[in-house]
Amino acid sequence: MQTETSSVTRHYFDWAGTAIPDTTLADETVPSGNPSSRHREGRAAKEALENARARCAAVLGVEPSTLYFTSGGTESNCIPLYSNLLRPAGRITASLTEHPSVSENLQTLQRLGKPIAGIPVDTSGRVSPGLLAQTLKKHGDTRFAAIMAVNNETGAINDIKALREILDNCGVPVHFHCDMAQAAGKIPVNLALCDSAAISAHKIGGPRGIGLLYLRRPLEVLYSGGGQEGKIRPGTENTSGAAALARCLEKYASASAVNAEYQKAKSRFAKLMRSLAETGRCTFIPSDRNPDSDNFSPYILQAAFKDIPGEVMVRALDDAGIAVSTGSACSSSSPGRPVLKAMGIDEKTSLEGIRISQGWSTTGEEIDFLIKTIIEVIKYL
Amino acid sequence: MQTETSSVTRHYFDWAGTAIPDTTLADETVPSGNPSSRHREGRAAKEALENARARCAAVLGVEPSTLYFTSGGTESNCIPLYSNLLRPAGRITASLTEHPSVSENLQTLQRLGKPIAGIPVDTSGRVSPGLLAQTLKKHGDTRFAAIMAVNNETGAINDIKALREILDNCGVPVHFHCDMAQAAGKIPVNLALCDSAAISAHKIGGPRGIGLLYLRRPLEVLYSGGGQEGKIRPGTENTSGAAALARCLEKYASASAVNAEYQKAKSRFAKLMRSLAETGRCTFIPSDRNPDSDNFSPYILQAAFKDIPGEVMVRALDDAGIAVSTGSACSSSSPGRPVLKAMGIDEKTSLEGIRISQGWSTTGEEIDFLIKTIIEVIKYL
Repeated sequence: MQTETSSVTRHYFDWAGTAIPDTTLADETVPSGNPSSRHREGRAAKEALENARARCAAVLGVEPSTLYFTSGGTESNCIPLYSNLLRPAGRITASLTEHPSVSENLQTLQRLGKPIAGIPVDTSGRVSPGLLAQTLKKHGDTRFAAIMAVNNETGAINDIKALREILDNCGVPVHFHCDMAQAAGKIPVNLALCDSAAISAHKIGGPRGIGLLYLRRPLEVLYSGGGQEGKIRPGTENTSGAAALARCLEKYASASAVNAEYQKAKSRFAKLMRSLAETGRCTFIPSDRNPDSDNFSPYILQAAFKDIPGEVMVRALDDAGIAVSTGSACSSSSPGRPVLKAMGIDEKTSLEGIRISQGWSTTGEEIDFLIKTIIEVIKYL
Repeated sequence: MQTETSSVTRHYFDWAGTAIPDTTLADETVPSGNPSSRHREGRAAKEALENARARCAAVLGVEPSTLYFTSGGTESNCIPLYSNLLRPAGRITASLTEHPSVSENLQTLQRLGKPIAGIPVDTSGRVSPGLLAQTLKKHGDTRFAAIMAVNNETGAINDIKALREILDNCGVPVHFHCDMAQAAGKIPVNLALCDSAAISAHKIGGPRGIGLLYLRRPLEVLYSGGGQEGKIRPGTENTSGAAALARCLEKYASASAVNAEYQKAKSRFAKLMRSLAETGRCTFIPSDRNPDSDNFSPYILQAAFKDIPGEVMVRALDDAGIAVSTGSACSSSSPGRPVLKAMGIDEKTSLEGIRISQGWSTTGEEIDFLIKTIIEVIKYL
């Protein structure tokens, strides 16, 4: 989608950082009462909130009672993570390519006395069933495993069903948390395979400040307050955000919507990848990523350009009217590329990596412009 | 302000639960990029976010660097509370009339090993300097004290300046946290007297899902993620919420706006209180609350009607077109009235209490209608 900023035509390829908001989703009027109040205004707001929850549940194929509205993906990751503080002993494990809203909290949990461990990924950036099984064998005290559905830097897709089977067969109950922020609305998701899952509205065209936490069974949680959201997430409920998220999921996350966009996205990226490969300066991360493979999200591509630091590339493309990023926007305050390091990518290539991410309104013309611009830029860099 | 619901004219007296949203505040277009992204869209969003922060800071009379956007008042209370887990030993104290978003968390913190203690209130529901001094003397290991500015059920105003002096003179550093959710935009506030303070947008006409945390100095906090908000509050920043909160504070929380509305609110409630007293069935909580006193917020009144359970009164008024509540909307899921109990109110009177709360658009005609309706209702109950 072309966007206008200061009369320069812009081409946005950072949908994984935040999607271009779908302004048509903001139209519904939602009762403004406090859903916890017992008067008519409160009951009307409660009804709207439960209606939003039911609509989200219908799209996601789960019971409404398993969905809790939160302030976003980060909080939806933090709630299950910190619930570990209220549980008996047990190790918390997480894949080495988790988003900072999972990985950074592990340090804090460790500081508070919880044993932690990383789950390695293979060179494609995926947690293979074998690697998970090895981790569980090595750390028999594991009771929590966080493994994301789609990596936010590389697009690598984990096989949640196969991983669930490993957990089911490991002999002890292990809570399976899945960050689905880059999966919902992009690839088919099955929340019921997890014990908890996180979804963020703004990654799929919805507003900021609203997300969903799926919980197969209620947990004891840290933050408490007014007993809202089944005592899972305190604070006056963001009813208009909830309604916007429901509309957003209905539009983008239904199986038919996901399937309709998936092939289009895949063919746009296939063209991009072929053209970038032809430049002779581009290495995909992982290097054997195949445009036809369904092991990677067709919305996220990590690519390194030989001898061009990622930061330089981002700036050069920005000057040419194109928005891309290096890693996660959420790691822009931290140095290094831990996700790529976990995949065994050497440091030089890591620092050359940029993330190109697209969305539903990305056009073939924009892909052509991106290809043309990259070819021009690498000539001079 | 009269509101229309299903063609019945409604009169809203539950502003302390949530204010009627000021829809004129929702007009500004905010750049939609991710403020943590380095491209032009990200920088524009970052600029909008920092502009919103500077505007909030200007209204509140503090440095922009001391303000952090959160998802609301509850989170702004929870962040400083749980930071205690990362600090060396020290008792956490809180007044016995705190909002559930403070009080309920104390149980969890205690379970996690932190010693806690309550700070008693006098019969007016206020923490007097003497009561705070006694608590500090009794619990010399106190390092954190949470005392709200305005009680959400009774409107009792604590003298933050006097309490700060007690803390300053107690011989050890004690972090002073102040829940200002019912104070900002209603009475003059001075954040700089506290070490941390919580403000919620929806209590003053702004949207749900956005609030402010004031921190005199940065804290180590529990939830982490992308390093947003100076590593105090992780998650992609809610830029449009932040901008709406800035407009809301500018309109309602400046000293001149607060003063302009304060006397009007006070005189409306003075009339209400005189009329309710004349019924002979009404006891204010506290019973000696004086309409002229500045020790109570003129926006919140707690009143008990003899032999009429509060729940019954709320329902009867609701049927007559008036929205009031009993206690906090946030305690609607918990039994009893702990705030009133802390004031020494007997259980029968406590259960007869209702909360009447008004806002800037409340009219004299609505007060008249409320008085007339209450007089009618108590005749039959």
